[in-house]
Amino acid sequence: MKKLEIAVIPGDGIGKEVVPVATKVLDTVAEIHGGLKFEYTEFPWSCDYYLEHGKMMPEDGLDILKNFNAIFLGAIGNPQVVADHVSLWGLLIKIRREFEQSINIRPAKFFKGLKSPLVNPNDFDLIVVRENSEGEYSEVGGRIHRGEDEVAIQNAIFTKKGTERAMRYAFELAKQRRGHVTSATKSNGIFHSMPFWDEVFNEVKADYTDIQTASYHIDALAAFFVTRPQIFDVIVASNLFGDILTDIGGAIMGSIGIAPAANINLNGKYPSMFEPVHGSAPDIYGKGIANPIGQVWTAKMMLDHFGEQELGQKLLDAIEDVTNDGIKTPDIGGTSSTNEVGEAICSRLKEVC
Amino acid sequence: MKKLEIAVIPGDGIGKEVVPVATKVLDTVAEIHGGLKFEYTEFPWSCDYYLEHGKMMPEDGLDILKNFNAIFLGAIGNPQVVADHVSLWGLLIKIRREFEQSINIRPAKFFKGLKSPLVNPNDFDLIVVRENSEGEYSEVGGRIHRGEDEVAIQNAIFTKKGTERAMRYAFELAKQRRGHVTSATKSNGIFHSMPFWDEVFNEVKADYTDIQTASYHIDALAAFFVTRPQIFDVIVASNLFGDILTDIGGAIMGSIGIAPAANINLNGKYPSMFEPVHGSAPDIYGKGIANPIGQVWTAKMMLDHFGEQELGQKLLDAIEDVTNDGIKTPDIGGTSSTNEVGEAICSRLKEVC
Ligand SMILES: CC(C)[C@H](C(=O)O)[C@@H](O)C(=O)O
Ligand SMILES: CC(C)[C@H](C(=O)O)[C@@H](O)C(=O)O
Repeated sequence: MKKLEIAVIPGDGIGKEVVPVATKVLDTVAEIHGGLKFEYTEFPWSCDYYLEHGKMMPEDGLDILKNFNAIFLGAIGNPQVVADHVSLWGLLIKIRREFEQSINIRPAKFFKGLKSPLVNPNDFDLIVVRENSEGEYSEVGGRIHRGEDEVAIQNAIFTKKGTERAMRYAFELAKQRRGHVTSATKSNGIFHSMPFWDEVFNEVKADYTDIQTASYHIDALAAFFVTRPQIFDVIVASNLFGDILTDIGGAIMGSIGIAPAANINLNGKYPSMFEPVHGSAPDIYGKGIANPIGQVWTAKMMLDHFGEQELGQKLLDAIEDVTNDGIKTPDIGGTSSTNEVGEAICSRLKEVC
Repeated sequence: MKKLEIAVIPGDGIGKEVVPVATKVLDTVAEIHGGLKFEYTEFPWSCDYYLEHGKMMPEDGLDILKNFNAIFLGAIGNPQVVADHVSLWGLLIKIRREFEQSINIRPAKFFKGLKSPLVNPNDFDLIVVRENSEGEYSEVGGRIHRGEDEVAIQNAIFTKKGTERAMRYAFELAKQRRGHVTSATKSNGIFHSMPFWDEVFNEVKADYTDIQTASYHIDALAAFFVTRPQIFDVIVASNLFGDILTDIGGAIMGSIGIAPAANINLNGKYPSMFEPVHGSAPDIYGKGIANPIGQVWTAKMMLDHFGEQELGQKLLDAIEDVTNDGIKTPDIGGTSSTNEVGEAICSRLKEVC
């Protein structure tokens, strides 16, 4: 029996609604598998927790998480009660960094049964490899002067090691896919870091002569996500650019509510973390209408991570079938509840397996 | 007779094809006006110039430009021969900064006769006010170590003055439009500069109680440009975020080739510069098929700048009529040449005026 210990952090808002649905789906998968078991330990770390304790998680939070096989996270953030940078850097970004989850992988593809806002969304199938540990997201910087003279300085830090790691990951991934890597740059405007990014990309690509490449400035690339997402296979992007592109990726699929993500620790020292692209959506929280697909698809990425690609694929197919059958939450034009979508996915899985 | 001295820099690639078309249109406008005259002085500063002289413009280039009423620029850049950051920082970005063109205004709207890639592009009409002189585009930073240990550090610098200036410009503009300003932030991920951005936004908005506001993180905002561009009126954004959003703005109109821009000097010390959003497009240069609309619409923004809003509006209407009549370049589904589109716009203008 393969037993996997999962730290579950539902977090804030709709995270608390979609996570239980996704763990139920995971249990169904385990049942079908026969030799697989998920053991969940839930942690209430969130903005509510912050309001009570003055921090997003306990001092020894990371020590507690360290020994799990994976972390399954919902969403973090409630700007009404805790400033976003306080809540995010106190939990989500902290875990990404301290656990050296240096890569964030985020697929986006033409999804059966969804209405894309694009006239021609046909058959796009891309995956963004986002550098997840450095770059534009950095605590380095600060402010000087006050009042009219105040100046904020923000450092973006790109190491050779971090940049190269993300790029090599992208090239390896492209080998298993359609053999194409696109680099997201902005070396015409961003003077130091992006020409460096280009240099590293050129160096890495020299090692992969069988892989086709392209390099676009982020402005043009973001526009291409709208006008011709079909041209992309694997895209490698900095922390910020990956963040922006993957929200557009969600949008062109038909809803950010379905986009999944995996924060991968590559050195085996710490658990990886699985959390969808969407946020805590306080505006719809409590209504039972949050789209669970992002969280369930994220569970599929966790299955892949544990070597269960075959069942992972079946799960993704089940999600698409259910969507195609019109069992959908309101954000994608349906009338079903969060739980109904979850149950439909479980039934469908049992049917086909 | 109102005589306006215009420094014309066609620049690289298709800049050399669309600028002459746009000046011809301007001449037609002047003729119709009767009391207006444009006097052009052309400068060959470009990547070709760089190849010959080792710099993008002469040492005293800025002195030469200083006394013109405006600068009318095509496009800069040919990455085949000069690294992008060398060509751009040697000319385009240099002029923006040295001439304190602190605001870049870029409209995007539902455009008659164009095929948007969106299923529902109806009636969106927005304008991005982009901070144009600081932020993420900065020469501050550098590198340390070499080889495997190399690190690139990029500083983004946000001054109170620069940030507030862009925001106040946006609020003033909103007053003349639909009274709504959206702030593009990323204060959940970008630790120092973006919380500062939010603070300044909150401060400025307190002075404009009659203006409605919203604030979105750039990832969500970029996605909204695709899913519901109709919710926006004026958007205020940093240098980088404004750059990304306006390319998406071009994309949802139907082509980046039509998007216009104005780099505005607010203190009256230096000329403003008018240049479209698109680049030099080396791939289609020389074929006579570049879309001149971006450059012509940019000429319209120059007319507005000189107080000729009425003729400016007639010019924009003429562009839309011609497009709607199917006189279009291949990028937007037509078969007309650059010159044919230009001529059609001139004829249409003469017809209606
Ligand atoms: C060419 C480049 C430096 C420029 C920018 O990023 O400002 C361009 O993309 C633009 O939008 O004007
Ligand atoms: C919440 C925020 C800090 C986060 C990010 O920007 O990384 C989110 O947008 C994401 O994409 O995971």
